[in-house]
Amino acid sequence: MKFCNKIITTRSQYAGAAQHKCHCPKGHSGECNEFPFLEHLKTVAPSVANKIKRDATMTTGAAWKSENAGPNRILRWVMMLDDEDLLEYGLDMSKLKPGVIAKLREKAADYDSCILVAAKLTWLVYQMENAPIPPTEIRKYLENLFGEMEPNSTLCVICKLPLDFNLFNLAVRGKAAIETCHKNPRMHNSDNVGFGHRECNIAQGNKSLDEFYSWINGIISRVNSES
Amino acid sequence: MKFCNKIITTRSQYAGAAQHKCHCPKGHSGECNEFPFLEHLKTVAPSVANKIKRDATMTTGAAWKSENAGPNRILRWVMMLDDEDLLEYGLDMSKLKPGVIAKLREKAADYDSCILVAAKLTWLVYQMENAPIPPTEIRKYLENLFGEMEPNSTLCVICKLPLDFNLFNLAVRGKAAIETCHKNPRMHNSDNVGFGHRECNIAQGNKSLDEFYSWINGIISRVNSES
Repeated sequence: MKFCNKIITTRSQYAGAAQHKCHCPKGHSGECNEFPFLEHLKTVAPSVANKIKRDATMTTGAAWKSENAGPNRILRWVMMLDDEDLLEYGLDMSKLKPGVIAKLREKAADYDSCILVAAKLTWLVYQMENAPIPPTEIRKYLENLFGEMEPNSTLCVICKLPLDFNLFNLAVRGKAAIETCHKNPRMHNSDNVGFGHRECNIAQGNKSLDEFYSWINGIISRVNSES
Repeated sequence: MKFCNKIITTRSQYAGAAQHKCHCPKGHSGECNEFPFLEHLKTVAPSVANKIKRDATMTTGAAWKSENAGPNRILRWVMMLDDEDLLEYGLDMSKLKPGVIAKLREKAADYDSCILVAAKLTWLVYQMENAPIPPTEIRKYLENLFGEMEPNSTLCVICKLPLDFNLFNLAVRGKAAIETCHKNPRMHNSDNVGFGHRECNIAQGNKSLDEFYSWINGIISRVNSES
């Protein structure tokens, strides 16, 4: 599928970092739209649509307020700019701790990858247990990009158990029960993202999925050989 | 071994919550001492001695500053008091979020258990790879409580790999590489505590060790049956 790709003007302070584009199919009728695949979710489950958009396009940044904790949520493609360009946006990387810089730079991704991540996450959401049913137009759009959709087939990327759409509404101690996950935490693209249980994502930490599985395999064999 | 158990007066604002006692062997010579087993570590590795004392006797509390995040580190036995008594110490539990209250109450432990936890952690530290060698008096004291000490035998409670004393000095992004762990996170006593890698402790989360092992066992079998 080819996108319309017409430039959409934005009032974002970071407009210079990437041109926002229309992702309706090329030759579409009606208005241009950067996230046409989210239109239905925006109506029936706005918080899920917002989460997809946010996780796809923004870094996590700092969860707490502190002088040197770094900015809280910033566009991932802005993090592709070098320190000098960032300074023009008022972000002085030299003032941040090395750990914060590493964390921010790890989350960098180009604009087109972020859009495809958002579309992939939407495709996955519609295949969760108890998910809303997408309008035909959106289903076809997403299938065109990522293949046929099968109800109830979305598994936690990490533990491989089915994910229930209702988990989006479940938060324990203020933390959502479903998180956006990366098979390899350092790559933000549509092949590498998915959803997972919060506890699974935390357990995986900075490891790739392969590293995580061999790590827990090692634990299991040491525990078994001990008893 | 019987402790001296003579009351040690303290200027702590929480003095009423528990009487501090001398844990030198009964009939000892010299001054009374609440933590005689830490005297050597206090000299050769003060930060490790402080960590043992802190983790054994204090709750973690909130890592960030916030009106309703709860107090940052409070004596575990103070958390055994009921809300009314806590109010007298200026701690209004009714002002805290349910999640914070649960977290604080989970960490409650009586004074004697905390002292034994500190002693057990000290016993484990001396058996880590590259640990300092304890003076005979302290070794005998600890062996009397927890059994014979074997150099290089302290394993991560969770992953069962040997722990190196030097990991205490290693911090990644400001977080210590070794943490105090609980086989069952809700019980703070000497049988249930040990040391573990930070990443292992995070992965275990709120699960007991048994729950954690069967959880990762399930992941491994699903991943294997998938490929």
